[in-house]
Amino acid sequence: MNFSSKKYKKSFDYSYSIGVYSTLELLTYKLSQTVKVFLHSKSGKNKGAQKILSICKASHIETEIADGLLTKLSNSENCYAIGFFRKFGSNVSPKKDHIVLDSPSDMGNVGTIMRTMLGFGINDLAIMRPALDIFDPRVIRASQGAVFQINYRYFNTFKEYQTQFPRNFYPFMLEGINIDEVVFEKAFSLIFGNEGSGLNRDFLKIGKPVKIPQTTKIDSLNLSVAVGIALYESYNQNRKS
Amino acid sequence: MNFSSKKYKKSFDYSYSIGVYSTLELLTYKLSQTVKVFLHSKSGKNKGAQKILSICKASHIETEIADGLLTKLSNSENCYAIGFFRKFGSNVSPKKDHIVLDSPSDMGNVGTIMRTMLGFGINDLAIMRPALDIFDPRVIRASQGAVFQINYRYFNTFKEYQTQFPRNFYPFMLEGINIDEVVFEKAFSLIFGNEGSGLNRDFLKIGKPVKIPQTTKIDSLNLSVAVGIALYESYNQNRKS
Repeated sequence: MNFSSKKYKKSFDYSYSIGVYSTLELLTYKLSQTVKVFLHSKSGKNKGAQKILSICKASHIETEIADGLLTKLSNSENCYAIGFFRKFGSNVSPKKDHIVLDSPSDMGNVGTIMRTMLGFGINDLAIMRPALDIFDPRVIRASQGAVFQINYRYFNTFKEYQTQFPRNFYPFMLEGINIDEVVFEKAFSLIFGNEGSGLNRDFLKIGKPVKIPQTTKIDSLNLSVAVGIALYESYNQNRKS
Repeated sequence: MNFSSKKYKKSFDYSYSIGVYSTLELLTYKLSQTVKVFLHSKSGKNKGAQKILSICKASHIETEIADGLLTKLSNSENCYAIGFFRKFGSNVSPKKDHIVLDSPSDMGNVGTIMRTMLGFGINDLAIMRPALDIFDPRVIRASQGAVFQINYRYFNTFKEYQTQFPRNFYPFMLEGINIDEVVFEKAFSLIFGNEGSGLNRDFLKIGKPVKIPQTTKIDSLNLSVAVGIALYESYNQNRKS
């Protein structure tokens, strides 16, 4: 694998985690995919960076001091570690609950959603195209490395997903049953639309449409907040049952 | 007021909303603070931009076509409007419920929190320093103009806030009563720590500490997601009572 110091492109067969925390998550959950870790010359006093170094030594993963590369790829003078890894395929499980995102485009939102999924015990993420690239370093960073614990799969259409994964669908819309009155029956999929447009009205005929009660002062909640509330409610039901 | 095309600095006595939606929010809720609106030469077909133009005409607010300025300040070729306004003072109300943020630093989080506050009917925001500048255009953008409906005030310490606003405090921590078992008694303040460090342990002695049940797979939820869940629960209680 040839690592240039070029900024990440979707066409690359590798990507990288920026920062000590995300790189530790990479080494913990996707060690076999990790190819090389670059460290900063000043990282000697950083405990996390030292942990990275010892994992790499034990696992025969190459390391290199490369201050310029770190500064360039992170846009920061304070980045102590970047971990390069081969992108990996994955799949969602028919037995597990899913988060479904239709055409997500905001890197920060999707990263935050991955982290929130782990916090509420759902690891499977189905994504409908067109959509962002979950291996973009900005998604990885926003996820704080949660991406390395997420099972994911892209689908071209919801129909394609629906056919392969028949289950209880809960599309989140601006009309539907109030979320606190819904009983989420397993295995379920919580479905959310794009940041700008939400789910189209065809989803009113799919499963049980759900709404999150809110004032009329805003058009809609931020996507990562809406998914967070849905995950919280489903986790609470599960915890109590 | 002298508008340079310089990027915003905290020391400026003015700031600006980027984009049609935020600029409409500015004109709707802080018209008297609005000084001048810059439009793109291609904005003639954009309905929102035309609405901006007609509000400005009716209210004798100066407008100017300035494609270069829009591109420079927005970092985008597709920005149709930027509204300059005089920054405004504000205060929180002793009778209303508050969100309290201790030392927030992430622009996107705080903007998202403002928008979520409006969605769940809390308009008052108390901020403990050191903290970001809520008039930074990046906060305004993330809030989608919600900042223009928020009552805010900065405090130097929590003690200062607590003395002036005696009420029911609910600090959000990693230990405490589960949020779904808490009855939020009015007037209340939901208190959240910094993105990196959370609230320090002294807050365990303040009011009723609350936790959001979650797995051990993450250190903590993203700040804007945690605030979103807290606002959702308090709004639901209020709605049903």
